[in-house]
Amino acid sequence: MLLIEKYLSIKKKEVEEALEKYLSPTTTYPPIIHKAMRYSTFAGGKRIRPILAISACEAVGGNTQDVIPFAAALELIHTYSLIHDDLPSIDNDDYRRGKLTCHKKFGEAIAILSGDALLTLAFEIMSKQGITEKTNSSLVLRVIYEIAFAIGTSGMIGGQVVDIISENKSTDAPTLQYIHTHKTGNLICTSLRIGAILGGSSQNQLRLLTQYGEYIGLVFQIIDDILDIEGNKEVMGKSSQSDISKNKLTYPSVYGLEESKEWAKQLHQEALTSLESFDHQADPLREIAKFIVQRSY
Amino acid sequence: MLLIEKYLSIKKKEVEEALEKYLSPTTTYPPIIHKAMRYSTFAGGKRIRPILAISACEAVGGNTQDVIPFAAALELIHTYSLIHDDLPSIDNDDYRRGKLTCHKKFGEAIAILSGDALLTLAFEIMSKQGITEKTNSSLVLRVIYEIAFAIGTSGMIGGQVVDIISENKSTDAPTLQYIHTHKTGNLICTSLRIGAILGGSSQNQLRLLTQYGEYIGLVFQIIDDILDIEGNKEVMGKSSQSDISKNKLTYPSVYGLEESKEWAKQLHQEALTSLESFDHQADPLREIAKFIVQRSY
Repeated sequence: MLLIEKYLSIKKKEVEEALEKYLSPTTTYPPIIHKAMRYSTFAGGKRIRPILAISACEAVGGNTQDVIPFAAALELIHTYSLIHDDLPSIDNDDYRRGKLTCHKKFGEAIAILSGDALLTLAFEIMSKQGITEKTNSSLVLRVIYEIAFAIGTSGMIGGQVVDIISENKSTDAPTLQYIHTHKTGNLICTSLRIGAILGGSSQNQLRLLTQYGEYIGLVFQIIDDILDIEGNKEVMGKSSQSDISKNKLTYPSVYGLEESKEWAKQLHQEALTSLESFDHQADPLREIAKFIVQRSY
Repeated sequence: MLLIEKYLSIKKKEVEEALEKYLSPTTTYPPIIHKAMRYSTFAGGKRIRPILAISACEAVGGNTQDVIPFAAALELIHTYSLIHDDLPSIDNDDYRRGKLTCHKKFGEAIAILSGDALLTLAFEIMSKQGITEKTNSSLVLRVIYEIAFAIGTSGMIGGQVVDIISENKSTDAPTLQYIHTHKTGNLICTSLRIGAILGGSSQNQLRLLTQYGEYIGLVFQIIDDILDIEGNKEVMGKSSQSDISKNKLTYPSVYGLEESKEWAKQLHQEALTSLESFDHQADPLREIAKFIVQRSY
């Protein structure tokens, strides 16, 4: 566990240095929007998506430096989605990771526009990379397309919409599955895919890493739901049982707590199986899968 | 006036056919988001931005078919900005173009996500164009970058933020100028630029069309402000004097009504001067400038 934590902390630092570089200083006019964008981006995220992109690139033997700007873009997109999810008319959350949410800190108007701005900045960073840097422009376009598709109405936004319309309704297991594969799973999976694509993966490697991504995306959500019941408020930085109080459909509520835990273990094994044909360069991905299953926050 | 109206109506139809093709049917799961996206996109817009992109491409002798997908993307981005602007925490508008605004019709959560989805779809359409079609991938990346930059915090969102923080405050003329060049001007100017870039313009043509765009973007806003005072509610589809009731800074409130009208006329002349070195293929742009100055809605 110690080694992977060291690895994650090194990669996290790389990602945060890139975020630091791409986000305008808080003094840039108009300051309030840049303050809000930085506030939410540097609110203590684990940087799982960008790290997965980097690790996928390593797993196929690519140059991770090529992935960094896209990894940063993924984190900005993730942050945008959290800011909008937290809004009063959506999840109405006052705290995230122990800090006030963007709209509680800066007001609703600025929070909406900060989310918009982070999403826009992600596309600006990626397209600029294809113009000014050595990255092949058709690869960059493919990556932009993969990301845009993953976060649109067939992906992340679709999951968010179904989550909203399902609240306070008795919903079935396929709906729960739809919400999570779309709301969380798609971007996780896409993070791996773009790391692989930029790293020059073969078709077969891409297929296997996509599969790995699907398994760990699902594990990630199941563990999230379990932590919502069992987690410690101090460690998690938000009230546990917030899903229950909102009458949200979760894996434990549909399948029971023990069965959910069992399922997470099985998915972890499946994720490792997807990586069987990869060499030691995929070790970080193997360890990340274990880390996700064992995390307590 | 008759000829340009015919031209605008033909181009509008082309743009709307593209929008029809790119927006998912309202039956696509989850239906509510696709209904909301179509509701706001087909709410009677004039399609000025996409038409400017097409006309700029014509002016430099390019193939307008190459511009259509990007023109549609511009209109989706414009629609996203209107949906978010109308939200209760931002401009709090119940009607636009005589129809209920997106959040009044579909609720605030769906309105926020529809805006997000339209912005995302715009990038999906543009990047896909560079992958699947004949359009040169480095040109596509350049266009994506131009657009992302124009609508970010140095552009459209910046203008929107300053507009919000200036409300109910006594603001100066430079601030008014900043708001409008950024909130409206940038995207209009960028529409012309991307039409020119995709049409294969020279550096000098691009510079001149950018200049034309800056002039007409400003005229457009001045006329908008004038119409807010003098306009007819039935024709405009929103209450006139809504800026006054919100205590918003406008050109007439800063410079007076007559001086604003005079300024619009001068800018119209400047716009025409920018087009002097262009042949008859720039006639639509010349007529559009006149149309903007003379419009009554």
